[in-house]
Amino acid sequence: MGNCIQGCKDFFSRQKNTNIRLTLPVVCFFWQIAMIILFGVFIRYDEESDTHWVETKAHENITSDIENDFYFRYPSFQDVHVMIFVGFGFLMTFLKRYSFGAVGFNFLIASFGLQWALLMQGWFHSLDPHTGKIYIGVESLINADFCVAGCLIAYGAVLGKVSPVQLLVMTLFGITLFAVEEYIILNLLHARDAGGSMVIHTFGGYYGLSITWVLYRPNLHQSKRMQGSVYHSDTFAMIGTLFLWMFWPSFNSAITDHGDGQHRAAINTYLCLASTVLTTVAISSLSQKTGKLDMVHIQNSTLAGGVALGTAAEFMISPYGALIVGFFCGIISTMGYIFISPFLEKTLKIQDTCGIHNLHAMPGVIGGIVGAITAAAASESVYGKQGLINTFDFTGDFKDRTVLTQGGYQAAGMCVSIVFGVAGGAIVGSILKLPIWGDPADENCFDDEVYWELPDEEEEHQQSIPPILEYNNHMIHKQQDLSESNFSVEHCES
Amino acid sequence: MGNCIQGCKDFFSRQKNTNIRLTLPVVCFFWQIAMIILFGVFIRYDEESDTHWVETKAHENITSDIENDFYFRYPSFQDVHVMIFVGFGFLMTFLKRYSFGAVGFNFLIASFGLQWALLMQGWFHSLDPHTGKIYIGVESLINADFCVAGCLIAYGAVLGKVSPVQLLVMTLFGITLFAVEEYIILNLLHARDAGGSMVIHTFGGYYGLSITWVLYRPNLHQSKRMQGSVYHSDTFAMIGTLFLWMFWPSFNSAITDHGDGQHRAAINTYLCLASTVLTTVAISSLSQKTGKLDMVHIQNSTLAGGVALGTAAEFMISPYGALIVGFFCGIISTMGYIFISPFLEKTLKIQDTCGIHNLHAMPGVIGGIVGAITAAAASESVYGKQGLINTFDFTGDFKDRTVLTQGGYQAAGMCVSIVFGVAGGAIVGSILKLPIWGDPADENCFDDEVYWELPDEEEEHQQSIPPILEYNNHMIHKQQDLSESNFSVEHCES
Amino acid sequence: MGNCIQGCKDFFSRQKNTNIRLTLPVVCFFWQIAMIILFGVFIRYDEESDTHWVETKAHENITSDIENDFYFRYPSFQDVHVMIFVGFGFLMTFLKRYSFGAVGFNFLIASFGLQWALLMQGWFHSLDPHTGKIYIGVESLINADFCVAGCLIAYGAVLGKVSPVQLLVMTLFGITLFAVEEYIILNLLHARDAGGSMVIHTFGGYYGLSITWVLYRPNLHQSKRMQGSVYHSDTFAMIGTLFLWMFWPSFNSAITDHGDGQHRAAINTYLCLASTVLTTVAISSLSQKTGKLDMVHIQNSTLAGGVALGTAAEFMISPYGALIVGFFCGIISTMGYIFISPFLEKTLKIQDTCGIHNLHAMPGVIGGIVGAITAAAASESVYGKQGLINTFDFTGDFKDRTVLTQGGYQAAGMCVSIVFGVAGGAIVGSILKLPIWGDPADENCFDDEVYWELPDEEEEHQQSIPPILEYNNHMIHKQQDLSESNFSVEHCES
Repeated sequence: MGNCIQGCKDFFSRQKNTNIRLTLPVVCFFWQIAMIILFGVFIRYDEESDTHWVETKAHENITSDIENDFYFRYPSFQDVHVMIFVGFGFLMTFLKRYSFGAVGFNFLIASFGLQWALLMQGWFHSLDPHTGKIYIGVESLINADFCVAGCLIAYGAVLGKVSPVQLLVMTLFGITLFAVEEYIILNLLHARDAGGSMVIHTFGGYYGLSITWVLYRPNLHQSKRMQGSVYHSDTFAMIGTLFLWMFWPSFNSAITDHGDGQHRAAINTYLCLASTVLTTVAISSLSQKTGKLDMVHIQNSTLAGGVALGTAAEFMISPYGALIVGFFCGIISTMGYIFISPFLEKTLKIQDTCGIHNLHAMPGVIGGIVGAITAAAASESVYGKQGLINTFDFTGDFKDRTVLTQGGYQAAGMCVSIVFGVAGGAIVGSILKLPIWGDPADENCFDDEVYWELPDEEEEHQQSIPPILEYNNHMIHKQQDLSESNFSVEHCES
Repeated sequence: MGNCIQGCKDFFSRQKNTNIRLTLPVVCFFWQIAMIILFGVFIRYDEESDTHWVETKAHENITSDIENDFYFRYPSFQDVHVMIFVGFGFLMTFLKRYSFGAVGFNFLIASFGLQWALLMQGWFHSLDPHTGKIYIGVESLINADFCVAGCLIAYGAVLGKVSPVQLLVMTLFGITLFAVEEYIILNLLHARDAGGSMVIHTFGGYYGLSITWVLYRPNLHQSKRMQGSVYHSDTFAMIGTLFLWMFWPSFNSAITDHGDGQHRAAINTYLCLASTVLTTVAISSLSQKTGKLDMVHIQNSTLAGGVALGTAAEFMISPYGALIVGFFCGIISTMGYIFISPFLEKTLKIQDTCGIHNLHAMPGVIGGIVGAITAAAASESVYGKQGLINTFDFTGDFKDRTVLTQGGYQAAGMCVSIVFGVAGGAIVGSILKLPIWGDPADENCFDDEVYWELPDEEEEHQQSIPPILEYNNHMIHKQQDLSESNFSVEHCES
Repeated sequence: MGNCIQGCKDFFSRQKNTNIRLTLPVVCFFWQIAMIILFGVFIRYDEESDTHWVETKAHENITSDIENDFYFRYPSFQDVHVMIFVGFGFLMTFLKRYSFGAVGFNFLIASFGLQWALLMQGWFHSLDPHTGKIYIGVESLINADFCVAGCLIAYGAVLGKVSPVQLLVMTLFGITLFAVEEYIILNLLHARDAGGSMVIHTFGGYYGLSITWVLYRPNLHQSKRMQGSVYHSDTFAMIGTLFLWMFWPSFNSAITDHGDGQHRAAINTYLCLASTVLTTVAISSLSQKTGKLDMVHIQNSTLAGGVALGTAAEFMISPYGALIVGFFCGIISTMGYIFISPFLEKTLKIQDTCGIHNLHAMPGVIGGIVGAITAAAASESVYGKQGLINTFDFTGDFKDRTVLTQGGYQAAGMCVSIVFGVAGGAIVGSILKLPIWGDPADENCFDDEVYWELPDEEEEHQQSIPPILEYNNHMIHKQQDLSESNFSVEHCES
């Protein structure tokens, strides 16, 4: 028994081996082949992307091709797609030597995740009971991207501290948990969450925080030298920030109702985000002695408004309501970076590389609450009779639901997402703790060197700083002269 | 009296204090709260973004949700949005140490400006006389972004020489002036200017030039070392250039008429910009002894064609007409960088950091003239009877206007925009001259250090140039050996 | 005779002169003026972008402006436009000192190319026999961008080794050849190739490889020090990669049939590309001793799936079919970088800077084969009767064609594109070999210095690495002390 415990201890504390030449290819190949087989069995084109569309059109009296859902949603889909790959990817390039890992692993796990998400979400939301098939269209692609977003948020918490294999495992389970909690929140509780304050951001945030809590590294300070940014890496990160910020109106409106639903969600998000920028700047400036701004805040907290309007964007929250949400989110998120993140790390042992607690978890919870309140306060006078039914989808089994009840279910959905995030993260974190995944040693965190062939920088520097080298060369000569003269002195001494 | 003058002099020449820890947060908070209150009083969803859309549809016999204006304009809106935040932001990152300020302050003032623009433009253009409300939809968002563009152009002239507080003040007044001149030009004079050659670019250009003229710094050469670019900052700037260039067809077509109007404006701008690139390259190459190209020209002058087609893009200028406009704009704008900018700085004391005179002011004036001529030359044989009415909106009060008269009013609009720019800029410049805004001293211009917490670069360089340091370390040892041997020599000497 | 040969030899081997101050401006001006004249003679707005659209609408019973082709294709057009200018441009910035040339020359030749393409494609595809005019709309713009893509692919092979004048010549002939082969493949053979596996990628790939083969430089190793990347240049290149990857679904669906055609092409490409990423990562990791990833593979091979689905994207290849194509393309393309590129360079003397053989030529051929097989395997049971006719355009002269015949013609199209690429490239390469185009010497390849005014970097480095310089300065003093002491020793010796 003692032996066993000792063996376990040895197993967990053995020298880190970051060689992933076996595990990474095996996981990639095996999973991709699994995807192909499962897609072969389950996934088909839906009626709007199938060549039979011409018959569907005739049958349903659709007069023009432009009424294909593709034209309602494709521009928003592409914006969301940019957010997932360029937005999340570049947002994480701020570390001085982890840009390849930030953009590259983001690319890898998103590409895997979206395939698995199409299957998981398909099984839960759109499996045809008669044919046993999942029919996909542009809305499925958006939902898959959304699902992936949850896992990329979680990546932000563990950025630089895990191997790509761990990330793939984290994504596999993350997508799975996502599909289940989404099913519970949207279908069973019938909560509304078009931009995913709860389903995406709260879940993703707590999932990541929980994982990084399990994977706590007491000696992370050993790679402290790598944990900062440099001037150009911060500029790269602003590419990510801006694409996320600009396209967030598309994110929140991508799967809302055709017509006024998409229109209103975009306007609300646009306004909310503008408001967030001003309060973020204000708090950031206040936090420094001379009023200087901190890039960390500008890169992250400016986005909190988009997160917090994820649920309520499609509601009649009214333009000034959107501004108010943004106002407080900018303050709270920036305060989070200043006060809460250090507290989490010191006291709760949560090492949150990108501060996802401030950008996703907290604003996500705020978004859930805002959504619940806005739903509970909805009235026929504001929405119109049909408008109320459309907005909250009070049809079928839910046709007698009141807005107050709806508010309650929204709050319940909020709790479900937190529970799934925390519990799911704890379990997945434990799996990731197994010392077989090739994660880096404490002193090699935040360093692309571990998983990437890096270009040899020497030559460039020889190019670009000739004066120094030249001077050094010059000194070598002098030195040699000196040595010789010394030698001669010594020589003559003897 | 003498005391007073002396006091004034002292007041204006006192030591620069760049501490903005009080002013910046106060301005941000106060203005954002004002926005919330004013939005609460005035701004509402328009009928296409309101839940009552379902009733509007029924009432107006609209058969499909796709006829919501959202689907006509949202893709163009997102392109314009990218131009405002990534385009303008990154275009200004060319300075070696002002990338944070370029992207970050651009982000700040655009976020404030668009809120204020929704109000100002609403009051002037779309205040409902019965309800006293402004109803906003996707077209309002585009117009707000356009309005902001005018102020961002002006930012280009003062880049690196002002504080963020000054920029916010400049934006507040800029948006206000913009809304007034726009009202005069588009509503009173009934000039057409869909892409804003006059309203946006001419006004914004002269507004900025006028401000920088008032804020003239005789000792700016003290920060000359910071006024150049470095290799990677020029590459970052190309991100801005390209997104502006690619999306300019969306800019010029975003608010033109549905159908052929948007279609034609996009085609014309696309062609015009392509033509500009070739002549820009030609002149840039001619300007150097060995025909080398200058990044400043490629980054800026290639965009002049888009500016110059802002008015005429929606007219039947014909494809080759668009090419001709682009042809001359590339030449004139590049010549401007080579000859006019140095002249403006030396003789007229106009220090124009980004050369907005060459990119916006001059091409904007050209655009106004092109618009006036094209309008005056319009004929029913080319446009068709209804086409002519649609294109120039010869309806209501203006239904009897001839194309010649229209040409005259276009030219008048041109003059209005120049007058507003120059006079407005002079007044606002004087306000900004007050020594309370925290602007940097002459020797600290173009330096992010003043307003941003900068990352500590030391460590990275120690990382990335080990050979040199290693060698240095090696030399220390040698040196010590030498010292010792020397010492021994001296010792033995004695 | 001997004299003549000697003269020729001298002519071809004379000292390289990279002064392009005469040739570049002359070519730019002359060609742009030619474009204006030809556009004046030939190019007009089509009926959907002409002010007569209001009459066309009435005549053709079109009920809404939204049925203008602009709204079907403009969002995709803008995505394609981003791929051409940011995608291709930034993908090539990976070299440490050729970012200006990569982005800048890409910008130049694309801007010229798209004008020439509108003419060439117009003459071949849409010249109105009655009026002798070419009528352009948004689909023409997309096709022009596609045509340009072929030449930008070829640029990838000769990146860093040619002058901008050579690039313009290469583009002039490339566009011309493209229009002819496209006419043969799409119109005469009636092959389908919406995303251009054959027409764009295979042709462009072999055109570039053939040119670089003719321009073989035996002493290219002399600029080997410039042929690598640095950390930030690789990060810039990822901007190009990601925008290409994300928008490839728009590329393959931009000109497919309205409705289900565009919808299905986007879904297929999205899936195919996701699959490619996983196998690229797997092979890249396998290729290194410790499983490290290589940025070259991630930047390039991840895109191979998009190329290979260019032909079949609009077919009913089914979601798992798309995944399978992506699966193999990731493997083959990455293998290409590891094994085939070195072989091509060593044995066949093909110096392919960006490895376009692995990213475009090979995957293009795969795409052609996949298209032929998928077409031959099409059945009425899968497509539906009308669906089959729509997808393969079995109308007019081709209304009796069977799918098997179609498969054969697809394969024939494939061969045509290879022949045009190889033969055309050989001829154009010979023209580019003339020593009048200002190409760089072997030791100056891959260096922006030759064609660009570069910023002076010295100052920045003095700024950013003070500790080293300081230390050096410190050493100077020590050194001097030593010298003096030595001197005193020597002095006392004498």
